[in-house]
Amino acid sequence: MFESFNPTPRILMGPGPSNVSPRVLGALSRPTIGHLDPQFIGLMDEIKQLLQYAFNTENTFTIALSAPGSAGMEACVVNLIEPNDKVIVCINGVFGTRLKENIERVGAQAIIVEDKWGDPVTLDKVEGAFKANPTVKALAFVHAETSTGARSDAKTLCQLAKKYNALSIVDAVTSLGGSELKVDEWGIDAIYSGSQKCLSCVPGISPISFSDKAVEVLKSRKSKVQSWFLDQSLVMNYWSGEGKRSYHHTAPINSLYALHESLLMLKQEGLENAWQRHHNLHLALKSGLEKLNIEFLVDEPHRLPQLNSVLIPNGIDDNTVRTALLSKYNLEIGAGLGQLAGKTWRIGLMGSTANEQNVALLIAALQDVLS
Amino acid sequence: MFESFNPTPRILMGPGPSNVSPRVLGALSRPTIGHLDPQFIGLMDEIKQLLQYAFNTENTFTIALSAPGSAGMEACVVNLIEPNDKVIVCINGVFGTRLKENIERVGAQAIIVEDKWGDPVTLDKVEGAFKANPTVKALAFVHAETSTGARSDAKTLCQLAKKYNALSIVDAVTSLGGSELKVDEWGIDAIYSGSQKCLSCVPGISPISFSDKAVEVLKSRKSKVQSWFLDQSLVMNYWSGEGKRSYHHTAPINSLYALHESLLMLKQEGLENAWQRHHNLHLALKSGLEKLNIEFLVDEPHRLPQLNSVLIPNGIDDNTVRTALLSKYNLEIGAGLGQLAGKTWRIGLMGSTANEQNVALLIAALQDVLS
Repeated sequence: MFESFNPTPRILMGPGPSNVSPRVLGALSRPTIGHLDPQFIGLMDEIKQLLQYAFNTENTFTIALSAPGSAGMEACVVNLIEPNDKVIVCINGVFGTRLKENIERVGAQAIIVEDKWGDPVTLDKVEGAFKANPTVKALAFVHAETSTGARSDAKTLCQLAKKYNALSIVDAVTSLGGSELKVDEWGIDAIYSGSQKCLSCVPGISPISFSDKAVEVLKSRKSKVQSWFLDQSLVMNYWSGEGKRSYHHTAPINSLYALHESLLMLKQEGLENAWQRHHNLHLALKSGLEKLNIEFLVDEPHRLPQLNSVLIPNGIDDNTVRTALLSKYNLEIGAGLGQLAGKTWRIGLMGSTANEQNVALLIAALQDVLS
Repeated sequence: MFESFNPTPRILMGPGPSNVSPRVLGALSRPTIGHLDPQFIGLMDEIKQLLQYAFNTENTFTIALSAPGSAGMEACVVNLIEPNDKVIVCINGVFGTRLKENIERVGAQAIIVEDKWGDPVTLDKVEGAFKANPTVKALAFVHAETSTGARSDAKTLCQLAKKYNALSIVDAVTSLGGSELKVDEWGIDAIYSGSQKCLSCVPGISPISFSDKAVEVLKSRKSKVQSWFLDQSLVMNYWSGEGKRSYHHTAPINSLYALHESLLMLKQEGLENAWQRHHNLHLALKSGLEKLNIEFLVDEPHRLPQLNSVLIPNGIDDNTVRTALLSKYNLEIGAGLGQLAGKTWRIGLMGSTANEQNVALLIAALQDVLS
């Protein structure tokens, strides 16, 4: 009745996961060793260094959380925010909404700055919220909204947070490895990402990094972190590289082999080169979509190269097209999410997916399916 | 400076991870597809059914949580327990202590029933705690204490919980697939396990199952679950198999390929056969250890076949022996944990690790290293 699972391979041009290269899948399937094995401790140390490279940071506390990006988001919130704290949270898509939900579940007060889905966060509104609320502990926002494809100005937002003496908490799930991101230069205090977007690793891991200031805030909390699993004051000792690691949980060993390999590939390509590749492929995609008269949701200056939200043409059925792409071409694009469901498609050009071959195929396949 | 990671293979005879078979590693490295792909939805449905088989349950809510066993523990606690609830928690090792920590971080009151590390939970003490506390919401205990190798009488403990109208929350991280476990027959309300013990899958996944009564308790909560990521009322809709799944997070796709394969292997062997194999290998190990005059920590009737805590012989240095086993034989055994550190070794015979070859090698290697 049950058989081994042998999936038909797909070309993954949705909002993640992106295609995982044979090289990363090869690393993934190397023999499992113990998580306290000296070999594995060495691997964890290298992952920390490679993540520092990818994040553009020297933050000591830079690790790979043993759970997906959603848990990375929650980890940043529950470790840095305490009950009754005030947090400004910017909502311009699904993931800003999720940040608010996390903040409220801590018992903190979320001060909402709202923008239209598809627009970036409006800087003036954020400054207004800071002026109206003098005791804000943190500003939380999404750098690259995966639900809309809009990029917000993370650098200026973090400057605003600093100006008003607040921490910055940044969602970089879709930006890490795909477009400019400079944790130290921009002064980001807490950042989380996902393994399955522009790093093109398997899903299930969330790279996170805390500034020294954020670590200080964590260490001087009045109350315990409400989550034991996500308590980074404990996780920190599991990832500390000086031979005095203390057991916390069992790391997802093989997934970390894969993350190491995908980060190594990023380093070998060069971070700036990877950003440029995503940008170039976005331009190629844009040119192809224009010929099909397909329009973008997001205004040009705010578009993410790696996540392209486009408007479903009038008279075209969302599901029919996506099903046809999948069944005829083994090609996956993403549906709209939340209030954009049925109105947009999300075309991902992330990590290993971002190459000329895939862009050409998508344009040809769309042309066929839409005709 | 950085290179691809190619670990020296080890024989994993510690407390987990256990050895992952080539068959499971093969499944793990199949091409990543989307988590909303119809193929993947079919896989999730099969995983639910295979987990029901492994747990001996017909519970509708039986899923694989996208994080390690520690998160499975936390999921059971935060979903079923609310602030100010009273929970009896049995502590006879590290993981009972962790349960208490989770209960207290919810803002609930932990009523502690303590036993010596290496002993099973004393049933009379639990009944005494119920009698002394008439409004207890749940009883939480560890079926198979991974830190000591002691098995508690889960069946009778769950009967006690039922008698006093309390939910039972059971840690089966080390028991699932390795020794008798009958969720429905024993009346377990909430159970969590790990992928990397007797299932011999890669680490990072926690199988969990809730009885209908537990689901009812979750659905009639007064307050929101404090963790968004672990809120099973949301996760439930992600795992629902009737074509109306709603997005929650991105599942660890490749790890679920591996879990499916390992569960399939368990079903092909037969659950009772797997329990018998663990038992037989434990007897072979015991016989070998007796010849080396190595004694068990746990009294014979309460020993877990899959996790054997033994006393480090007088005059023998813990670390020297484990290091020698690892460097000369590529063989890992576990150190003692918590108050047993330096006093015990933990010898795992879990899942794929549990075969005659490994037992023979361990005895020979120990004989060499100890001589």
